Amino acid sequence: MNSIPWQERPADCADVVWRYSENPVVERDAIPSSNSIFNSAVVPFEDGFAGVFRCDNKAVQMNIFAGFSKDGINWDINHEPIVFGEGNTNMIESDYKYDPRVVFIEDRYWITWCNGYHGPTIGIGYTFDFKEFFQCENAFLPFNRNGVLFPEKIDGKYAMLSRPSDNGHTPFGDIYISYSPDMKYWGEHRCVMKVTPFVDSAWQCTKIGAGPIPILTDEGWLTFYHGVINTCNGFRYSMGAAILDKDRPDQVLYRTKPYLLSPQTNYECVGDVPNVVFPCAALHSIEEDKVAIYYGAADTVTGLAFGRISEIVKFTKENSL
Amino acid sequence: MNSIPWQERPADCADVVWRYSENPVVERDAIPSSNSIFNSAVVPFEDGFAGVFRCDNKAVQMNIFAGFSKDGINWDINHEPIVFGEGNTNMIESDYKYDPRVVFIEDRYWITWCNGYHGPTIGIGYTFDFKEFFQCENAFLPFNRNGVLFPEKIDGKYAMLSRPSDNGHTPFGDIYISYSPDMKYWGEHRCVMKVTPFVDSAWQCTKIGAGPIPILTDEGWLTFYHGVINTCNGFRYSMGAAILDKDRPDQVLYRTKPYLLSPQTNYECVGDVPNVVFPCAALHSIEEDKVAIYYGAADTVTGLAFGRISEIVKFTKENSL
Amino acid sequence: MNSIPWQERPADCADVVWRYSENPVVERDAIPSSNSIFNSAVVPFEDGFAGVFRCDNKAVQMNIFAGFSKDGINWDINHEPIVFGEGNTNMIESDYKYDPRVVFIEDRYWITWCNGYHGPTIGIGYTFDFKEFFQCENAFLPFNRNGVLFPEKIDGKYAMLSRPSDNGHTPFGDIYISYSPDMKYWGEHRCVMKVTPFVDSAWQCTKIGAGPIPILTDEGWLTFYHGVINTCNGFRYSMGAAILDKDRPDQVLYRTKPYLLSPQTNYECVGDVPNVVFPCAALHSIEEDKVAIYYGAADTVTGLAFGRISEIVKFTKENSL
Amino acid sequence: MNSIPWQERPADCADVVWRYSENPVVERDAIPSSNSIFNSAVVPFEDGFAGVFRCDNKAVQMNIFAGFSKDGINWDINHEPIVFGEGNTNMIESDYKYDPRVVFIEDRYWITWCNGYHGPTIGIGYTFDFKEFFQCENAFLPFNRNGVLFPEKIDGKYAMLSRPSDNGHTPFGDIYISYSPDMKYWGEHRCVMKVTPFVDSAWQCTKIGAGPIPILTDEGWLTFYHGVINTCNGFRYSMGAAILDKDRPDQVLYRTKPYLLSPQTNYECVGDVPNVVFPCAALHSIEEDKVAIYYGAADTVTGLAFGRISEIVKFTKENSL
Amino acid sequence: MNSIPWQERPADCADVVWRYSENPVVERDAIPSSNSIFNSAVVPFEDGFAGVFRCDNKAVQMNIFAGFSKDGINWDINHEPIVFGEGNTNMIESDYKYDPRVVFIEDRYWITWCNGYHGPTIGIGYTFDFKEFFQCENAFLPFNRNGVLFPEKIDGKYAMLSRPSDNGHTPFGDIYISYSPDMKYWGEHRCVMKVTPFVDSAWQCTKIGAGPIPILTDEGWLTFYHGVINTCNGFRYSMGAAILDKDRPDQVLYRTKPYLLSPQTNYECVGDVPNVVFPCAALHSIEEDKVAIYYGAADTVTGLAFGRISEIVKFTKENSL
Amino acid sequence: MNSIPWQERPADCADVVWRYSENPVVERDAIPSSNSIFNSAVVPFEDGFAGVFRCDNKAVQMNIFAGFSKDGINWDINHEPIVFGEGNTNMIESDYKYDPRVVFIEDRYWITWCNGYHGPTIGIGYTFDFKEFFQCENAFLPFNRNGVLFPEKIDGKYAMLSRPSDNGHTPFGDIYISYSPDMKYWGEHRCVMKVTPFVDSAWQCTKIGAGPIPILTDEGWLTFYHGVINTCNGFRYSMGAAILDKDRPDQVLYRTKPYLLSPQTNYECVGDVPNVVFPCAALHSIEEDKVAIYYGAADTVTGLAFGRISEIVKFTKENSL
Repeated sequence: MNSIPWQERPADCADVVWRYSENPVVERDAIPSSNSIFNSAVVPFEDGFAGVFRCDNKAVQMNIFAGFSKDGINWDINHEPIVFGEGNTNMIESDYKYDPRVVFIEDRYWITWCNGYHGPTIGIGYTFDFKEFFQCENAFLPFNRNGVLFPEKIDGKYAMLSRPSDNGHTPFGDIYISYSPDMKYWGEHRCVMKVTPFVDSAWQCTKIGAGPIPILTDEGWLTFYHGVINTCNGFRYSMGAAILDKDRPDQVLYRTKPYLLSPQTNYECVGDVPNVVFPCAALHSIEEDKVAIYYGAADTVTGLAFGRISEIVKFTKENSL
Repeated sequence: MNSIPWQERPADCADVVWRYSENPVVERDAIPSSNSIFNSAVVPFEDGFAGVFRCDNKAVQMNIFAGFSKDGINWDINHEPIVFGEGNTNMIESDYKYDPRVVFIEDRYWITWCNGYHGPTIGIGYTFDFKEFFQCENAFLPFNRNGVLFPEKIDGKYAMLSRPSDNGHTPFGDIYISYSPDMKYWGEHRCVMKVTPFVDSAWQCTKIGAGPIPILTDEGWLTFYHGVINTCNGFRYSMGAAILDKDRPDQVLYRTKPYLLSPQTNYECVGDVPNVVFPCAALHSIEEDKVAIYYGAADTVTGLAFGRISEIVKFTKENSL
Repeated sequence: MNSIPWQERPADCADVVWRYSENPVVERDAIPSSNSIFNSAVVPFEDGFAGVFRCDNKAVQMNIFAGFSKDGINWDINHEPIVFGEGNTNMIESDYKYDPRVVFIEDRYWITWCNGYHGPTIGIGYTFDFKEFFQCENAFLPFNRNGVLFPEKIDGKYAMLSRPSDNGHTPFGDIYISYSPDMKYWGEHRCVMKVTPFVDSAWQCTKIGAGPIPILTDEGWLTFYHGVINTCNGFRYSMGAAILDKDRPDQVLYRTKPYLLSPQTNYECVGDVPNVVFPCAALHSIEEDKVAIYYGAADTVTGLAFGRISEIVKFTKENSL
Repeated sequence: MNSIPWQERPADCADVVWRYSENPVVERDAIPSSNSIFNSAVVPFEDGFAGVFRCDNKAVQMNIFAGFSKDGINWDINHEPIVFGEGNTNMIESDYKYDPRVVFIEDRYWITWCNGYHGPTIGIGYTFDFKEFFQCENAFLPFNRNGVLFPEKIDGKYAMLSRPSDNGHTPFGDIYISYSPDMKYWGEHRCVMKVTPFVDSAWQCTKIGAGPIPILTDEGWLTFYHGVINTCNGFRYSMGAAILDKDRPDQVLYRTKPYLLSPQTNYECVGDVPNVVFPCAALHSIEEDKVAIYYGAADTVTGLAFGRISEIVKFTKENSL
Repeated sequence: MNSIPWQERPADCADVVWRYSENPVVERDAIPSSNSIFNSAVVPFEDGFAGVFRCDNKAVQMNIFAGFSKDGINWDINHEPIVFGEGNTNMIESDYKYDPRVVFIEDRYWITWCNGYHGPTIGIGYTFDFKEFFQCENAFLPFNRNGVLFPEKIDGKYAMLSRPSDNGHTPFGDIYISYSPDMKYWGEHRCVMKVTPFVDSAWQCTKIGAGPIPILTDEGWLTFYHGVINTCNGFRYSMGAAILDKDRPDQVLYRTKPYLLSPQTNYECVGDVPNVVFPCAALHSIEEDKVAIYYGAADTVTGLAFGRISEIVKFTKENSL
Repeated sequence: MNSIPWQERPADCADVVWRYSENPVVERDAIPSSNSIFNSAVVPFEDGFAGVFRCDNKAVQMNIFAGFSKDGINWDINHEPIVFGEGNTNMIESDYKYDPRVVFIEDRYWITWCNGYHGPTIGIGYTFDFKEFFQCENAFLPFNRNGVLFPEKIDGKYAMLSRPSDNGHTPFGDIYISYSPDMKYWGEHRCVMKVTPFVDSAWQCTKIGAGPIPILTDEGWLTFYHGVINTCNGFRYSMGAAILDKDRPDQVLYRTKPYLLSPQTNYECVGDVPNVVFPCAALHSIEEDKVAIYYGAADTVTGLAFGRISEIVKFTKENSL
């Protein structure tokens, strides 16, 4: 397998997460039909990497596309969206697909996304090869967004984080966990993390949602998430981290009071939706103590940021709410 | 078993559903602590009837109470709310309980209600005797209301109607169906019925929700439901009926374009929330061709209305959207 | 011609407008299909009276129906809505029709109403006999309500009051006048009357709209209108009067600061939309110094009120804003 | 001095506060110009009682009027509003006046009301004889409502409860206390009572505001107040009680979780603003253990309710939040 | 006549519409008093071009100014706004003027604009020489914006596109057509184009409005328009094209599903109102197969874009909704 | 004392206020913990300058920090926020502190800020040395922002401008003045300046608030303030000036119709809250006819602008509303 993308921290930077100097890694027009490419997911695949990309076309219709890369930085994204066959159901209706996540569990790559079925809910699919794809039952009733699977079964069941929503620009939102014995029926819903009081940590006081697949560390599940503040000029999305209990992931052990990354560069502050940093995937190496976080920027392009897992865990513990 | 409550149609009435002349059957202060008793469910029990009543107390806290009646009209409601033991879970948190439904399936009485767990969702419990009660896992993530079970398994699975919501005075809402092999994990979510365009049937153009347990007829599942219109003076709740396919209850065969009952009497138009007719239960006898519908009136008291099942089915078919 | 309906002022009443003692004159279920009958218009016809009634059916669809009466109090309303043929256009689309007004000009009875064409606008039609009806071009672009014709041409042109609106429960609204040489093309739009500052006359501070056809008096056009205040429990509709200049009806000479009639009886305060008094027609006799005002009550039934024209004019002048 | 109005508790009533059987005590049209008379204040005066009444006129302009009564039940209200001379300022601007309270302190009767000065704030005035009235500086900047003085100085300073608001149908509101050495400059603002969480006591979860002048009891200041819940059909106003520390009245010792009185009668549920019980004054006799509470009903008329002070104090302690 | 401005498509560009490399063509401070110059209209005039420019001054008052150019790129804009004399009316009130369009019909240049008369509506004026200007009756009642005349009479009548609105930041809006025999009275209103469902073409799902004067092509009237999407950070305005039937321009033959131009450059994404591309005029040459489109950028400056008419028509047909 | 910062007007600039060429003077990360530093106040101190800076940390918590500079341009800001001891009260609760102003009166430096006490209100504190700080009673009840003291007593009393608000992104707001004999009790509240009608000066039509400490000139108190317009993409904040009467500062003598500075540079248009220019302090020298205005830019950094006092006064008089 190839190494994950990496750049050392710049000399003048004291932050535990820092940006890739050549950001954005995926431009808005990386395929001919696209208006914007962002909020996308990548995963190690064969000797390199595969990804599922959210590419909104120039009619601003949302769909997901497969892509491939040797180095995680230069991406070949298919020009046609993913077509799904029937997985565990023949109900594979989808008005739109966006904000995918990808994770390998046991024998296959599972994809979750925000699926349009009378409003947003969590779509589930899988692939073995990123060529043929199969769609399963939606996990939940509408309205839901940001469905993120754990990379292994917990207590013998699949586990998924999600964020119950409404059908518009949802001005609220907390993170829940649900379990399934079979990827078809879901239950044992538990509230995991709620928004913070404005006075405690304002960047995450309006809504929060899980981002990349959680990473198992010695301290528990390292989970990057986005938080939103509602300013007088609209929502601003930033990124934080939480550590969830290994065996009971509805228990939050630590959670960053400060953000790890907030919109500050031009490509994060200017675009189709200004002031958005929205992480959806992370490549990591526990051995090398590295993580490479992919995030949507300004709902327009895809950025990449780096960090040392040990440092992020330490920071999260020391700056916890 | 006792006969269900009944009164013949008044001579001057041409409607297929008519009110009990002595309404309300349950007054707002029927127990000492209550501010209002409404949106409640009854079921045949032993030689009479049992019920689960929503009694809001004078702090306007919502809870559910067991009650008993010989004739379905005169009710003894317990002065203390139902206390639940652990059913299939130890997560029996509940900030509030309201709008119960009750149904007998196989060996026990199942109760569903709107359960406060970080917002409204569908609580599930059961009892064998209306003395001891057991609470199960919530069916869904928040936000949801009006969870209504079918009185028998469909294709080997429990089936539940529900209405995804938000966490306030939800200004939207359609009816979905979900299935469970075990009353714990739920999936196979399908949209059943949506609100109507204003120009087609305005009384149900804002939101709809299932009411009493569906009644199996030769034509399919007869399902009473409420519909809401948003006037310049707030929501008005009325009652209609739909007939769902016997084997595929996500298929609506017929659905009333006119309402069957709308707020017109003083006790329906004046009270804590004016202009509400909200059905939650129905006693029925296919043999006698009778149905007795219990409904909340003005969020304050409980009313009773009668109809001939065959007439209602005929009306629904002939006045279908 | 028959006399207009009339009752003398009750002994204990000091108001210039008083209610008919047997109100409502039209009940909500006066025809089999109706949920409510209100905001309707009447006019002298042959030896009695004819009317165009807003009857919402039990699907709460809005349409207009012809009706006839010998005495203006007992009405026979057709069970089927008015069907229009083509008048000056073949564009006679209509999603719904409501709040009609009727006036005789020159050789025929003109009807205006709120016509559903991609939202509410002003529909125009005519009849010679209340049997055959013809629909003309809509007067205006959406969104508009309360189109009220003057009973004679002014400066050789038809003149119409109207109230530009939006497509919901419009929280604003002033009265304008427009002119047409031919009932097809309209222009010379002028603002006539605006809402009042809250501190000057709160019952008409949210929106206003013309009601019955203006009545020509020595002082000018006596025009009844409705005004709306937005309370914390929704809109409350009351009735006032204005006197417009005979030759330049965009000039308001006088306008009542107090209301003439506000919702105070049970049938005005309780119903499908509580607290609505909404005048749409007036029968009058200058010779007998009488006016009989028909008004919708609580969006449910039709009420009748009486007054002496001379007293109302005097009151309007002496209590003018 | 005359006895305060009184009726014993009805035999079938178990509540600590009960209604006067001849309610309303003041009808909406008690003076010729009035549309409604409610939210008014009374006080012992000479050998009977005087009052300051909110009478909205038929233009729905809000103003305050003096009135007199021998028995506290039959009232003669002046036909002209109170005219103020200059008290401690020449700034006696007032766009409107409403919701008065009256209290005797030291040598005079102080009146506070909601005063229109670029929005609602707290107006202050005084009289010695209810004939001549003097207006002082407004206590606070806009926006504020429900300013209620304590009947004696606390720690040498005047003390006033108030409810900071916005300039519309304020959807929030807590009770604060402020102090003044001289009835001109105010400071030492403290938060006293906030709205309750919906799950704890829903009738007071949207906003609260002080009502009558606090009554000194052995347990502290007995303070009646109104609480509001925001239903899908608008605000509903009910009444509760709190006991504040005698010396540090910003400390709440007890506060009723249940309401003491909520809108249940026709005159409280139907009117210009349905479902309002709004207390503004209380006559009391510690010796006789009686209190007579005057409250606005449906923003239309004035009601009267009775209770035993000792019972209310006991109830408040035993049913405290 | 001079040639219209032109630049060939850049080598690396595959779009049918491309930007002028020296954009913006008009800076925000092109005249001393201006805060911003945008949403402006140009037209061939004498041997060069004339224009009517929206220049908001530094009090952010909106007015329209005449300007002149030899090449369509370098503009001399008058320092004083246009003053109108009386055209077909003496009612030439105007609280503000903005978003002008200009077209030559028969013998004169007609100007339409958003005219402030108790809210926005469509003002009409004309000039023969861009020195003397005459104002006519407003076309419609308020509230309306984006009135755009066709460059020739259709069926003997003037024809105008417009967009009925409300009086704020209108969150809805479709395009209608109206006709007039005389530029004074308007009627025969027809709906032409509505917003698209979000899932079909999201950039135009909130509101749309006509832009430049339609261009007659072999396929029909080529009409550029703007479409708006409501993001969580406000409105984003993009540009599309439609082809209307030559003889019945209320019939849409083709309409672009993708946008032609959306805010992507810094001067379109950053300014007084970020993310706005708003076309108001186009110079074209059928012979040379060229069009030069003038558009407001970020409500701050004026941009210029180019395209081949034949390509745009082909693109519109092949990418039609 | 050192000279105030200064740069001459650029040759190509005709404005009376111009930006410092090296803006921003304080970057967002000028101290390690800060997310942003803006809306801050400076004052001459010893031989240089001191300041109180709003530094939001990376949890986006708002607090105020002392800082020092020799030249007013290069600032050393403390890394820890100001800690207050008890001034005239022991009630020094504070959920947050933001938007400070500083002024020297008589013997000490007074600081006012937006203080979190059950919502925003005006906090008051003082220091003699910028090392030890003392907190006093809040001036007002919530909700209030932008409390600005005059630099000397007026008629023997302290005088403060403020802006009553609500507890969110207040969409309204006017400037009032209040007086205090002792910095503890406040009264004599007067309205000073209101928002302007949209058609007169749109940049200040939504809300306004005082900025730097008023500067006494021959013409009266020169007062810079911010004004806000509500665009379809959120609030835009600009700066204007007013001149208040020397002895009766509630009297506005002149007020700029045009803005003096609006967001136009990248650091004003792009940041945490785009399009904000928010002045909070000004260093001035009447003798040198200079003013240096410090303003928050995009709620992210601090900018500096310069002007000649005489020119600004002249401009204000000549361009007055």
